[in-house]
Amino acid sequence: MGIVVQKYGGSSVSDAAAIKRVARRITEVKKAGHDVVVAVSAMGDTTDDLLDLANGVSPLPPARELDMLLTAGERISMALVAMAISDLGFSARSFTGSQAGVITDSVHGKAKILDVTPGRIQSAIADGHIVIVAGFQGVSADTKEITTLGRGGTDTTAVALAAALDADVCEIYTDVDGVFTADPRIVPAARKLDRVTYEEMLEMAACGAKVLHLRCVEYARRRDIPIHVRSSFSQLEGTVVSGSIEDAEHQEKSMESPIIAGVAHDRSEAKITVVGVPDKVGEAARIFDSLAKAQINIDMIVQNVSAAATNLTDISFTLPRADGQTAMSTLAALQAEVGFESLLYDDHIGKVSLIGAGMRSHPGITAKFFTALADAGVNLGMISTSEIRISVVVAEGDVDAAVAAAHTAFDLDADEVEAVVYGGSGR
Amino acid sequence: MGIVVQKYGGSSVSDAAAIKRVARRITEVKKAGHDVVVAVSAMGDTTDDLLDLANGVSPLPPARELDMLLTAGERISMALVAMAISDLGFSARSFTGSQAGVITDSVHGKAKILDVTPGRIQSAIADGHIVIVAGFQGVSADTKEITTLGRGGTDTTAVALAAALDADVCEIYTDVDGVFTADPRIVPAARKLDRVTYEEMLEMAACGAKVLHLRCVEYARRRDIPIHVRSSFSQLEGTVVSGSIEDAEHQEKSMESPIIAGVAHDRSEAKITVVGVPDKVGEAARIFDSLAKAQINIDMIVQNVSAAATNLTDISFTLPRADGQTAMSTLAALQAEVGFESLLYDDHIGKVSLIGAGMRSHPGITAKFFTALADAGVNLGMISTSEIRISVVVAEGDVDAAVAAAHTAFDLDADEVEAVVYGGSGR
Repeated sequence: MGIVVQKYGGSSVSDAAAIKRVARRITEVKKAGHDVVVAVSAMGDTTDDLLDLANGVSPLPPARELDMLLTAGERISMALVAMAISDLGFSARSFTGSQAGVITDSVHGKAKILDVTPGRIQSAIADGHIVIVAGFQGVSADTKEITTLGRGGTDTTAVALAAALDADVCEIYTDVDGVFTADPRIVPAARKLDRVTYEEMLEMAACGAKVLHLRCVEYARRRDIPIHVRSSFSQLEGTVVSGSIEDAEHQEKSMESPIIAGVAHDRSEAKITVVGVPDKVGEAARIFDSLAKAQINIDMIVQNVSAAATNLTDISFTLPRADGQTAMSTLAALQAEVGFESLLYDDHIGKVSLIGAGMRSHPGITAKFFTALADAGVNLGMISTSEIRISVVVAEGDVDAAVAAAHTAFDLDADEVEAVVYGGSGR
Repeated sequence: MGIVVQKYGGSSVSDAAAIKRVARRITEVKKAGHDVVVAVSAMGDTTDDLLDLANGVSPLPPARELDMLLTAGERISMALVAMAISDLGFSARSFTGSQAGVITDSVHGKAKILDVTPGRIQSAIADGHIVIVAGFQGVSADTKEITTLGRGGTDTTAVALAAALDADVCEIYTDVDGVFTADPRIVPAARKLDRVTYEEMLEMAACGAKVLHLRCVEYARRRDIPIHVRSSFSQLEGTVVSGSIEDAEHQEKSMESPIIAGVAHDRSEAKITVVGVPDKVGEAARIFDSLAKAQINIDMIVQNVSAAATNLTDISFTLPRADGQTAMSTLAALQAEVGFESLLYDDHIGKVSLIGAGMRSHPGITAKFFTALADAGVNLGMISTSEIRISVVVAEGDVDAAVAAAHTAFDLDADEVEAVVYGGSGR
């Protein structure tokens, strides 16, 4: 009867009724003989309401004070969840990130967890209490300032707590039933995955699947914490994220698991093409170095073979649309120095990715994927691959058709269509 | 150029406009060359909203979790005030009660401040920051739990900070212009006092004046911190609370200060009479011991001379109305043991008090007070006196007439009527 760590997002604690439902679920696990530690997000719209308050007094509030403000959100929800648990006759203790020993670096707004020192949590567990911890927040190691973890923060809090407490499992409760083979809003026949490896989940998260945040999956993989993604609105089993691709291959051989875990898509990127770059050593480095200095994360990069006649090449890359204008002005400032011809900007693109551990040992996946897209009349832009992923850039208007075609081609369609809403909370 | 501590109540930080106004006021003090430390309450209705949330999940929430919840209120307001200050080009740092070193006992909901260890505040001041501290909260010395201070808590936070930082003055900003000779809603001719001693202010607070809480004045007297009570809605000088009654007497002789500081009233009490108590040693002790065990605070007590024929006496006392039913059932359970005849309960009473340090050296004050009340047709119930106060219990309907009559009799009426709203925030 080990420790179970659970995470409830904002939509799971949006009002008194939701909080009471969560409290009942938590106490059922305690009744079953487990110790329970819960990470909670702020209630529904609290974070947005607090941001509105901040904008009311300052157009550009200091990051330290913004963290101080926003952390009030989880403080409220954790106290309410503890109260609701007490009301069911169980004993609960809530702790802020700082009290729970969530130690971070000092980057306000997107701090990273460096360590968890869960002494107070362990004492509370030993005293028989159910422990509720404010997600999304911590305290910086050096300055002792309150920090927030940024998007996906409460998921990461939960996984970090599970690792520090050597928990049996980390259950991430959300408003969907688990991880799906594709977004059910695009592919009604998408199926819930019972199991997916860390690597596959990482690729899916990186390629636009919103149910789990990249950082949380990375943390879980590093510490080998199984994540069970499930719905707080049903009693269904969700998706277990665990194991390496080697395990998956082994399983696959014996159990005939599917080769492909799912099809992810992402409409949040833009594409920039630097036209006519002199093909000599160091030019590409200079371009991407200047973008890195502007804090811009690049996703896919493609460089053409240079035309022999001119010795000029084109370099294309994708990046978050939000960074598009910054990148364009950064590059424009570089034009004289690098001597490229022009810049093209396209934010009407989408990325469609096929992800699966089985891809490594099955030749012909790429060909089958591209054929399916061609048959659906989808033109491919950039292409990028990893060991267990193939991503293509297509026109934004072709994303739905591409996802559906790939899903069908790899036999992922379910016999019956499940009724779900695909989404995921931000914190 | 010392340290100025300021306190802003909930009505002074009720919305973005109010917070910006407060920020401007704070930065003006900084511009004048002072270091500034500010204690803030939760915004306007935040505390009530949080209590509503708590009641939504539990009819009787645990006190520890209620403190965790309510302290979110000051966390929000302090961050917003710090942001508004930054927006004016000054540097501000907000600190929770715990971060500010406000150490309390562990009585959730009404903790007492045991000590203030202001290391982080002093560092922030040394670095040139304006410091904003969450009022009403602290951290318990033994259990390291978050506590709240109960009513008047933010005033007490401000005074405790002023004492720990050796501040020049503690300015309590509220929604009235200062301390008045009587409630201007009852006596339109009431005057603002420029100065009042700690002892007078204590008696006034204990007798129903709501502008400053008793605990805050006690703390200030013990540590000799001058309090300047003033309005956050005007630039007027308010009332300075400082000095002992000996100082006041000395001043009075030289400056002909008024003998009476003001007339206070209180409609929050009830009166219980225990009829026909056997007049023997220990009976009164037994009655009040049982009430003390029930955590009931008694205010005035009167015992009649016993009738020679029966050797029975009546004991009357006043207490907060909120405790009335508890007291009645506590006493009823005692009837057989003590052998009294019956209990009378009256919650249609009011207490009117005349307060003034000069009273000690001026005979005839009592006679003049009672004559004024008699001339106004007010019948006196219980009477109680201290060195600098005379209190009488009257019918609730006679309170206004009694206050007005006393105010006029002691020449407190102003020549011109000031337009003010009398009130005061709870935290």
